[in-house]
Amino acid sequence: MNDTDQAGGFRIEHDSMGEVRVPAHAKWRAQTQRAVENFPVSGQRLERAHIEALARIKAAAARVNAELGVIDGDRAEAIAAAAAEVAEGRWDEHFPVDVFQTGSGTSSNMNTNEVIATLATERLPEGREVHPNDHVNASQSSNDVFPSSIHIAATGAVTRDLIPALDHLAASLERKSAEFASVVKSGRTHLMDATPVTLGQEFGGYAAQVRYGAERLRGALPRLAELPLGGTAVGTGINTPAGFSAAVIAEVARATGLPLTEARDHFEAQGARDALVETSGQLRTIAVSLTKIANDLRWMSSGPRTGLAEINLPDLQPGSSIMPGKVNPVIPEAVLMVAAQVTGNDTTVAVAGAAGNFELNVMLPVMAKNLLESVRLLANASRLLADRTVDGITANVERAREYAESSPSVVTPLNKYIGYEEAAKVAKKSLAERKTIREVVIESGYVERGDLTVEQLDEALDVLRMTRP
Amino acid sequence: MNDTDQAGGFRIEHDSMGEVRVPAHAKWRAQTQRAVENFPVSGQRLERAHIEALARIKAAAARVNAELGVIDGDRAEAIAAAAAEVAEGRWDEHFPVDVFQTGSGTSSNMNTNEVIATLATERLPEGREVHPNDHVNASQSSNDVFPSSIHIAATGAVTRDLIPALDHLAASLERKSAEFASVVKSGRTHLMDATPVTLGQEFGGYAAQVRYGAERLRGALPRLAELPLGGTAVGTGINTPAGFSAAVIAEVARATGLPLTEARDHFEAQGARDALVETSGQLRTIAVSLTKIANDLRWMSSGPRTGLAEINLPDLQPGSSIMPGKVNPVIPEAVLMVAAQVTGNDTTVAVAGAAGNFELNVMLPVMAKNLLESVRLLANASRLLADRTVDGITANVERAREYAESSPSVVTPLNKYIGYEEAAKVAKKSLAERKTIREVVIESGYVERGDLTVEQLDEALDVLRMTRP
Amino acid sequence: MNDTDQAGGFRIEHDSMGEVRVPAHAKWRAQTQRAVENFPVSGQRLERAHIEALARIKAAAARVNAELGVIDGDRAEAIAAAAAEVAEGRWDEHFPVDVFQTGSGTSSNMNTNEVIATLATERLPEGREVHPNDHVNASQSSNDVFPSSIHIAATGAVTRDLIPALDHLAASLERKSAEFASVVKSGRTHLMDATPVTLGQEFGGYAAQVRYGAERLRGALPRLAELPLGGTAVGTGINTPAGFSAAVIAEVARATGLPLTEARDHFEAQGARDALVETSGQLRTIAVSLTKIANDLRWMSSGPRTGLAEINLPDLQPGSSIMPGKVNPVIPEAVLMVAAQVTGNDTTVAVAGAAGNFELNVMLPVMAKNLLESVRLLANASRLLADRTVDGITANVERAREYAESSPSVVTPLNKYIGYEEAAKVAKKSLAERKTIREVVIESGYVERGDLTVEQLDEALDVLRMTRP
Amino acid sequence: MNDTDQAGGFRIEHDSMGEVRVPAHAKWRAQTQRAVENFPVSGQRLERAHIEALARIKAAAARVNAELGVIDGDRAEAIAAAAAEVAEGRWDEHFPVDVFQTGSGTSSNMNTNEVIATLATERLPEGREVHPNDHVNASQSSNDVFPSSIHIAATGAVTRDLIPALDHLAASLERKSAEFASVVKSGRTHLMDATPVTLGQEFGGYAAQVRYGAERLRGALPRLAELPLGGTAVGTGINTPAGFSAAVIAEVARATGLPLTEARDHFEAQGARDALVETSGQLRTIAVSLTKIANDLRWMSSGPRTGLAEINLPDLQPGSSIMPGKVNPVIPEAVLMVAAQVTGNDTTVAVAGAAGNFELNVMLPVMAKNLLESVRLLANASRLLADRTVDGITANVERAREYAESSPSVVTPLNKYIGYEEAAKVAKKSLAERKTIREVVIESGYVERGDLTVEQLDEALDVLRMTRP
Repeated sequence: MNDTDQAGGFRIEHDSMGEVRVPAHAKWRAQTQRAVENFPVSGQRLERAHIEALARIKAAAARVNAELGVIDGDRAEAIAAAAAEVAEGRWDEHFPVDVFQTGSGTSSNMNTNEVIATLATERLPEGREVHPNDHVNASQSSNDVFPSSIHIAATGAVTRDLIPALDHLAASLERKSAEFASVVKSGRTHLMDATPVTLGQEFGGYAAQVRYGAERLRGALPRLAELPLGGTAVGTGINTPAGFSAAVIAEVARATGLPLTEARDHFEAQGARDALVETSGQLRTIAVSLTKIANDLRWMSSGPRTGLAEINLPDLQPGSSIMPGKVNPVIPEAVLMVAAQVTGNDTTVAVAGAAGNFELNVMLPVMAKNLLESVRLLANASRLLADRTVDGITANVERAREYAESSPSVVTPLNKYIGYEEAAKVAKKSLAERKTIREVVIESGYVERGDLTVEQLDEALDVLRMTRP
Repeated sequence: MNDTDQAGGFRIEHDSMGEVRVPAHAKWRAQTQRAVENFPVSGQRLERAHIEALARIKAAAARVNAELGVIDGDRAEAIAAAAAEVAEGRWDEHFPVDVFQTGSGTSSNMNTNEVIATLATERLPEGREVHPNDHVNASQSSNDVFPSSIHIAATGAVTRDLIPALDHLAASLERKSAEFASVVKSGRTHLMDATPVTLGQEFGGYAAQVRYGAERLRGALPRLAELPLGGTAVGTGINTPAGFSAAVIAEVARATGLPLTEARDHFEAQGARDALVETSGQLRTIAVSLTKIANDLRWMSSGPRTGLAEINLPDLQPGSSIMPGKVNPVIPEAVLMVAAQVTGNDTTVAVAGAAGNFELNVMLPVMAKNLLESVRLLANASRLLADRTVDGITANVERAREYAESSPSVVTPLNKYIGYEEAAKVAKKSLAERKTIREVVIESGYVERGDLTVEQLDEALDVLRMTRP
Repeated sequence: MNDTDQAGGFRIEHDSMGEVRVPAHAKWRAQTQRAVENFPVSGQRLERAHIEALARIKAAAARVNAELGVIDGDRAEAIAAAAAEVAEGRWDEHFPVDVFQTGSGTSSNMNTNEVIATLATERLPEGREVHPNDHVNASQSSNDVFPSSIHIAATGAVTRDLIPALDHLAASLERKSAEFASVVKSGRTHLMDATPVTLGQEFGGYAAQVRYGAERLRGALPRLAELPLGGTAVGTGINTPAGFSAAVIAEVARATGLPLTEARDHFEAQGARDALVETSGQLRTIAVSLTKIANDLRWMSSGPRTGLAEINLPDLQPGSSIMPGKVNPVIPEAVLMVAAQVTGNDTTVAVAGAAGNFELNVMLPVMAKNLLESVRLLANASRLLADRTVDGITANVERAREYAESSPSVVTPLNKYIGYEEAAKVAKKSLAERKTIREVVIESGYVERGDLTVEQLDEALDVLRMTRP
Repeated sequence: MNDTDQAGGFRIEHDSMGEVRVPAHAKWRAQTQRAVENFPVSGQRLERAHIEALARIKAAAARVNAELGVIDGDRAEAIAAAAAEVAEGRWDEHFPVDVFQTGSGTSSNMNTNEVIATLATERLPEGREVHPNDHVNASQSSNDVFPSSIHIAATGAVTRDLIPALDHLAASLERKSAEFASVVKSGRTHLMDATPVTLGQEFGGYAAQVRYGAERLRGALPRLAELPLGGTAVGTGINTPAGFSAAVIAEVARATGLPLTEARDHFEAQGARDALVETSGQLRTIAVSLTKIANDLRWMSSGPRTGLAEINLPDLQPGSSIMPGKVNPVIPEAVLMVAAQVTGNDTTVAVAGAAGNFELNVMLPVMAKNLLESVRLLANASRLLADRTVDGITANVERAREYAESSPSVVTPLNKYIGYEEAAKVAKKSLAERKTIREVVIESGYVERGDLTVEQLDEALDVLRMTRP
C-alpha cells in the first residue's frame, strides 16, 4: 500500500480527486471509500455471484494483458491469484459498496480493482505496486466489465441453479403424475364442475409448465451469454489491444464452464441491456407458472372439512397462533410470495432497461440485483416446493371420485346421442331434483325412445373413460 | 373556409408549413390532416369526455378573451357556440387524430381549434374568419390546455361516474350484508377451515373496501382538479393577459359543476403529471379491491357439486359450448378482467408519467387514454357487479352452517379452558377420528377433570356466538 | 332461422336457457344476444385477426368433422363457406360482444358458432338447419377453440406483421449506419462527454437491437404456435373423435401458412396461458428497445439552438399552437407512447396469465386484446419510425466533429503513455483553462520528458481513429 | 426454558406438533426453528422497524391483558419488559425467519412470541413459565397482529422518516429556487427550444413535486394508520375480551406517538390489505416525481463540453475507470435506481394485495418487506439528493442566458402584433439565415409597416420579461 500515514484505525489513500481516509483494515482504497460515503442508501451489496463474476474477468484479463504485453507477467500472476481468492468469496466483506450507487457500477468495478490491487501488491516483492486502474483494469472499462459481469453471473445462475431446480421440480411433479394416473376427479373450469380429469393429468400439466420454463430460459441464453467485454468506454474498444476481448472471454468461459460469447454488436451491447430485460421477462413467466401451480395445490388441499380436500400436503408447522391444530399450505404460500417478488423485480428491470441513453445504460447495479435475486428466489422456491410439498402429496382418492361422479357435466358425452339442448335439460333436472344423470336419463325416456341403450349410457357415464379422448 | 380549390372530394388547406389536401366534408383543417397522415398507429381516438373537456375550455377561453379584449365579441360568441356543440358530442367524427400522436396532444388541441374555427366561421357573416391559433387558441397553448383537459375529463369521470358507481355497488353489498347477517359459515384463512363468521360480515367487508375506494378517489381530487391552465407554453403564462386563467377556470368550473382550481405551481403543473399517476394508483387500488371481492364470490359460488357452494349467483347465460347445463360466474370474471386491464393501464400511466423532461411531459395522450378508460371500465364493472350479480345472490344457509359446525377451528374458544396445546390435541383427534369437537372434549375427560362444565362447553361451541367478540 | 315470431325489428331466438329477443337483422342468435346485454363494459370488440382465427378453426373443423363422420357433408360445406366469409371480415359487425365478457371467451365462440350457423343455414335448402353447438361447434369446446384462436391470431400477427416491420426498421437503421459511418461525434456515458464514436456505430447499435427483437419473437414462436385444439372441455379431448385435432390443426396451418402445432401437453395448454405471457414479455423487451432508440433520436435532434443538435429529423407538422415555427420529434414521441402502452398491456397479460385455476384460465379475452393490440401497435410504430423519421435523418457533421474534438475524454488514449492519474490531471486542466488536450499535454512537458512524441500524441488524439479498437 | 435435554449445542423444544432441535443459544423455540428449516429461500429477514412494531404490540397487549384479567400481573410485567428490549433492537439476531415464509407471517409472530416468552421467563422466578401462545399471544392472533405490525411500522416510517426527508429535500430545492430566481434560460418542451424560464422557476417546480409527495402520503395515513388489531383469527374478535383492542391500540399509539386507530371494519381489515397497496401507489408516485427531477438535473448538468451544461453538480468521485478526469451525476443516478426499485416493489405489493381470499390475505410478509424497503430507500435517496447534490448546485448563468436569447421561440410574444403565421415565418427565417429574431423582424419590414414599434419589439424580446405572464 502506498500511503501509510495512518492513525486511529484509518489510513490515507488517494485517487485522481485527492486524499481519502480509509479504515486501516480495509483492502479497498480511495474510490471504494468515496462510494461507501456517497451511497448510504440501502445497505444491500452486490450478490455473491456478481462479485465472483467480476473477479473472474479480472483474473482472465490479467493473464491476457500479460500475453499481449500490456502488463508484466509477475503483476499478472499476482492479480490472477488475488482475483481467484476474490472469486471464491474470501474477501466479500471488502465489497462494502451499496447497490444504489453510480449507475455504471464503476464504484463496484473500482472496488474490485482496488481490493485485487491491494491483495496482489501484498503478493509482490516490496516496492512493486499493482495499480487499480493501470494494471488491474488495464484494457478494460467499467462500461464493458460491469455489464459483462452481470451477464456472466446471470448465465451461471440460470444454468447452474435455476434450470436444475426447475428440472428437479418437474421430475417431482412427473412422479406424482404417474402415481396419480388413475385418480379420477372432477375437472373444474370457471371454478365450476366440469367433465372428469385425473389428478395425474393435472400434475402432468404442472410438470409441463415447469419444463417449458427451463426451455424458455435456454432460449434466452444465446443473448444473455453475449458479453460486451472488449467495448471498453463506449463500445469502440478504445485502449484495448487486438485480440483482447476474444481471449478474455474464452478464458472466462473456460474457467466457469459457461457458454459465453462476444457481443455481436458492441454498441448494442453497451447502449442497451435488452437481454437482461428479456431474461427477466422469462423469469416472470416462470413466476406466473408457479403461481398457477401453487394456487391449484392450495385449493385442492383446502379444508380439511370446508374446502375441496382432494389432496393432502405434508404438515410442516402449526398454522395458527390462535386456532389450535390448524395446518396451512405454507410452502405454496412462500412460492406465491416469491412469484410476486419476481414479478416486481421484473418491473424494476424493465423500467431500468428502458432508461439507457447513448453509449451506456446507467441503471446497471439495480438490474443486476433484481435479476440475480429473482433467479435465486425461483431456484430456491422450486426446490422447496418439490422437496417439502410435492414429494409428500397424497390423494383423497374416494373423495376425488365422488366429485367426478357428482359433477353434472358428466352429461357431456350424451351430446352425441341426444344433442346439446336435451343434455342441458338432463343436467338441470339432475341438479334440481338431486338425482344422478343416469337416473334422469332413464326417467326422461331417452332410452325408451331409443336415443341410446343402457349399455351406451353406462359406457358414456364412465368417469375414468371420460378422461381420455 | 378560405381556400376552396377543391376537386374529387378534397379541398386545399394551409398552415404555417404549407398546403394540405383535406377531405371536402371535413370541419378540420391542415394541422389535423397532417396528424391523420402522420399517425396511422392504433385507430383509437380521444375519449368522448376528453373532447368535451377540450371544448369546454375553448368556450370559456373565448368568453374571457373577449372580456379581456384579446378577441372581439362576435368571434367569441361564435367560438363559444361552436364549442358548445363540440362539447355535446355533435362533431365527434371530426376528431380523427390517433391517440398515439405528438406527446403534447398538440394535434388534438389543434384539431379542436380547427373544427371550432370552421364551425364558428360558418356562424359569422361572409368575410369574417375565425383563426384556429389567433382566435380559438388565443391566450392558450397546447401545453396548458391539453393537460388541463385531461384533468377536467378525469375529475368529471371520477366524480360523476366512478364514485357514484362505487357507492351503488357498496349499497348493494350492504343490503346483502344485512340480509345475510345471521348466515353463519366457516371462516377461511390460508383457504383452510377457520373459526366461524357470518356471510353478512363478509359482505360488510366487501362494502367497506368499496367505500374506501371512493374515499381514496376523493382524497386525490384536490390535486387532480388542479389545472395548469394559464401557464401556456412553459408555465410562465407567456402571452396570457392578467386574470385570464382564473377567469377561464371559474367559467369551466361553473359550466361543468366540477371543483376545479388553478395549479398552485405552474411549473410543476406542466413539467410533471404526477396527479394523474397518483389517481391511476388509486384506480389500481380499487381494481385490487374488486379482484378480492370477485374472487371470493367466484369461490363461494363454486360447484354446484364439487365446489364450496355457499352462495348462488344469478344465472345469466349458458356457460359452455360443450358441457350442457353449465352456468358460470361470468360477471365476476368480467370484473376480474377489468381489474387486470386497469392494473396494466396503471403501469402505462406510471411509465408515461416518469418520462417528462424540463417544461413538459410529452406522453399526455397515452396517459389520458389509459386513465379515462380505467375510470370508465371500473364504473361500468362496478354497476354491473351490483345489478347483475350481487343483487341476486342467495345463500345456501344450511350448507354454510354445516361448514361452520364442521370446522375443527371451532375448538378455538376452548383455549381459555384447556390451553392452546391441549386444544390442538382435541382438534387433531376430532379430524383423525371424524368426531365432533364436542365428542372429543367429553371423551378426553376435560369436563370430568373440571376444566370446564358441559354448559361452558356448549356455550363455547355455539358457532353463531363465535362470530362476535 | 328457426323461430320467426318477429315484430318491431326483433325476432325471438332461444337457447338452452330460454327465449331471447334478437335484432331482426342480426346474424347472431340467443347466446350472443345474452352476452351483448350482460357485458356493457368497454365498447371494445375482438380484434379483426382474432375473429379471422376463430372462423378459420370453424371452417377446418367442419371439413374434418365431415371426414370423420361427425356431421354430414353438405352441412360441413355450408359451414366452411360461411366461415370463409367470416374469416375475410365480411360479417364483422355481427360480432358485437364486448372484450370484457366471460373469461373463457365462450360468448365469442358462441357468437362465431351462431353467425356461421345462420349463414350456413341460409346456404342450405329450406328445412335443413345448422345448429351452433351440435354442428358448428361439433367436436370442440370454447375451452380449446378460444385459446387456440388467440395463439393462431398472435402467431399470424407476429410473423406476418411485426417481424417484417422490425426487419423494415432495422434495414432503415442499417442504411443510416452505413451513411453515417464516418460521422464522428462525442460518445456520451452518464450523459457526460466520453470518447468518440461514429454516428454510424450508434445507428448500427439501434439496428442490432431491432434485429434481436425479431430473434426474440422467433424464439417464442415454437410455444406460441402450439394449439390446445383437441383438448375440448378440460384437456382430455372428451367428445372429440380420434385424429380430429391433428387434422384440424394441419388444415388451419395449411390455410393460414402458419407453423401451427398441437400442444405437447393438453392440460398445460388449457390450464395455463404461459406462452402468451412469454410472448408479451418479448413484446415488452421490444418496447424497451424502441424506447432507447426513440429517446436517443429525440436527444440527438434536440435544439435547434439550445440542445445537442447532432442530427435533424424530418419536419412533419407545426409543433406548437403558441410557439411559431417550432417543430417537434413527433414520431419518436408516438413511438414512446406505444412503448408505454405495450409495457402496460404486458402487465395486464401477466396479471391475467397468473389468474388461472385448475383446467382453464378464464382471463382469455383480455389477454387476447392486449397481446394482439401490442403486436399491432409495435408493428405500426416500427414502420412509421422507419418511413417518417429514420429514412429522412440527416447529420450535422461539423457540429458532431466539434463535439468529438472538444470532449475531455479524448485524453483516454494517453493512459498508456502517462498513466490514468496523470491523464486525469491533463483532462481537468484542459477543462479548467479551456485549452485543448493537445495544448495541455505539450505545455505540461510530457513530450519534453519523453513520455510520448508529438507524432504519438497526434495519432493518439485522432478522434476518428479512437472509434476503432 | 422447559426442556433441557441438550447436547452438542442443541436443546430440544416442543410445540403442538412435537419436538424440535433448537440451537442452544437461541432465545427462539420450536415454531421459529421449524420456520427456519422450512423456509431457506432468500436470506432476507423482517425489517428492523417491523420487529419493533411486533414487539410494541406484545408489550401493550401484555399490559392490557393483565388489566382485563386474562394473564397475571407479573407475567405481564415480564412480557412488557422483554418486549421493550426486542423493540429496541437488542435481540434482532434471534429473528432468523425468512421473509418468504407462511403468508400470514405466523412464523414471525410466533418468533416474537417465543423470544419474548424466553426472555420473560428468564425474568421470572424459577418454576414460573411464560407460554408463547397462552401468555404472549393472549387475546391475539397472527391474523390481526401481523398486519397491524405492518401498518404500525409503515405509519412510523412514513411519518418519521420519509415525510421529513421529503420536507428536507423540498427545502433544499426551494433554497435553490430562490438563489436562481433571476437565472434566465431557454425553456424546453419536446426537448426543443421553447420560450424562456428561470432556473428558479424550474427548481420551484421540483420543490412543489416533492411537497405534493408529502401531501399524498398524509392523505393515505388515515387508512394506513387503521389497525386490524382486535379481529384475531378472522375479524370477529374471537377470544378477545371486550375493550382489548381499543386499549392496546391506545397504548401502542401512546408508546410510539403515532396516530393509530382501530379498523372501521374488521373484515375489510383482515380480508384485504388495500391500504398498503394504496400507500405503495403513493410511494410509486413519489418515485415518478424523483425520476423527473433526477433526469432534469442530469441533463442540465450534461457535458461539460458536448451537453447542455446549464448547471454544475458537485464532484463526488472519479467517474470512469478508463476515461481520466470524467465526473458523473452519480447521486441522481442512484436516485433513479431507487425510483426503479420502488416502482418494482409497488408491483409486488399490488400483485400480493390482489391475492387475498376470504378472511385473510396471505401475502403479508412480502408486502411488508417491499413497502418498508421502499419507504426507507425513498427517504435515504431524498436526503442524499438534497445534501450531496442539490445543495451544491451552481448555475452557468451566462450560458443559460445565451440559450434563452438564442431560442427561436422568443418570437412568441410577437403573435399579438403580427399573428401566429407571420411569426412562424420570422422564426424559420431566423433559423435558416442564422440571424436573431430582432434582425429578421426589422429586415422583414414589420416595424416599417407599423405592425409594432422598435420599442415594442425590444420589450417583447426581453427574455427575462418572458418568464412572467
